[in-house]
Amino acid sequence: MEFFDTIKARRSIRKYTAKAVPEEVIEKALDAALLAPNSSNLQTWEFYWVRSPEKKQKLIEACLSQSAARTAQELIVVVANPALWKKTNPEMIKFIASVKAPKLVLTYYQKLVPMTYGLSFLAPLKWILFNAIGLFRPITRGPVSFRDIQEVSMKSAALASENFMLAISAQGFATCPMEGFDERRVKKLLKLSCMTRVVMAISVGEADEKRGTWGPQVRFNREWFVKKV
Amino acid sequence: MEFFDTIKARRSIRKYTAKAVPEEVIEKALDAALLAPNSSNLQTWEFYWVRSPEKKQKLIEACLSQSAARTAQELIVVVANPALWKKTNPEMIKFIASVKAPKLVLTYYQKLVPMTYGLSFLAPLKWILFNAIGLFRPITRGPVSFRDIQEVSMKSAALASENFMLAISAQGFATCPMEGFDERRVKKLLKLSCMTRVVMAISVGEADEKRGTWGPQVRFNREWFVKKV
Repeated sequence: MEFFDTIKARRSIRKYTAKAVPEEVIEKALDAALLAPNSSNLQTWEFYWVRSPEKKQKLIEACLSQSAARTAQELIVVVANPALWKKTNPEMIKFIASVKAPKLVLTYYQKLVPMTYGLSFLAPLKWILFNAIGLFRPITRGPVSFRDIQEVSMKSAALASENFMLAISAQGFATCPMEGFDERRVKKLLKLSCMTRVVMAISVGEADEKRGTWGPQVRFNREWFVKKV
Repeated sequence: MEFFDTIKARRSIRKYTAKAVPEEVIEKALDAALLAPNSSNLQTWEFYWVRSPEKKQKLIEACLSQSAARTAQELIVVVANPALWKKTNPEMIKFIASVKAPKLVLTYYQKLVPMTYGLSFLAPLKWILFNAIGLFRPITRGPVSFRDIQEVSMKSAALASENFMLAISAQGFATCPMEGFDERRVKKLLKLSCMTRVVMAISVGEADEKRGTWGPQVRFNREWFVKKV
């Protein structure tokens, strides 16, 4: 499908038909998700494709049994897992060392990434340091706390989620991103570490043309959101 | 451009050529951004297109003068502004009342949204309540604090950012999402309320084919990120 047609075709669908979604459709959308830009290319995201009927039932309940989950053919849980930096950062160091990147970039991965992801318990100290330096010159104010790091990871996972949802639309199926879920129960179900965050659950299926949405897509006054300064 | 070609064409570009980006290209990408899915359709996002040469220079400095900002033709700052719910929620109530949505949906916008966005100072109380109920049945554990609400808003703004970046790629130009900036200075420059969060700065231009990237796109072992359960 053409790109802008895909953007227009995507709607959040709350009821799906009984038509199955071919495996290849999901796999292709997952491939698209993994090509999203992300923080320092550390790819601290995970995509749980919940296929076991028993787990699926539990996930539907954790999504408060909303119809977007209940009538879905497939369910994917997007997770931010900052701990993946331990696997991906050494690979980034290898890559950067192999190309003609400025030396500063190598130092960034060798020194700054471990300090940021590994030493979040020093958050108060970092906060004071960054804000003191910030009085004199521009400096990034974060991430300092572990919550800040989760936030960075969640943003990247959201970028990937959008790729995933658009890629499903481009193949003629529909999605609904859900934030109304019981994070504790989802984490227990997927055996996630307490350091992770559940970014969203995405349901997939064929849109029920009559009852998939409540009406036309609603977008408000563009001037409320777009500012030229 | 075809959708999957667009996904593959998008790379984060760190050096741009001197070629100007037509205004229509940015406007079209902003339109695409505004069509992203978002939390409760409250559209709590803002896109600052920084055009004044003086502000642009200050923004480049706040982005630590990195080449992705310095060589950019256009700069857009994506902001999460939860306070926009005050404008958009009444409009959602009007819309929901005008269509055949379940009564529960109307109640959600009339009662639950104001309680969530307006009463975040009750966070500790909400946390205890949600977690107590959660012992017995599935319930959303958040958002409770104002930080939680910002997080929800940032996720939605990230979904929109991905639409924006893909839409630029679909038109033959390139982007770089930047998180390495001085949030305090960016907020001061754009006169943002202290309740907002700067999600990312996105630079736009024509990719310098030789020096825009450090090499091929790096993606790690798919099995690290995709889990079938």
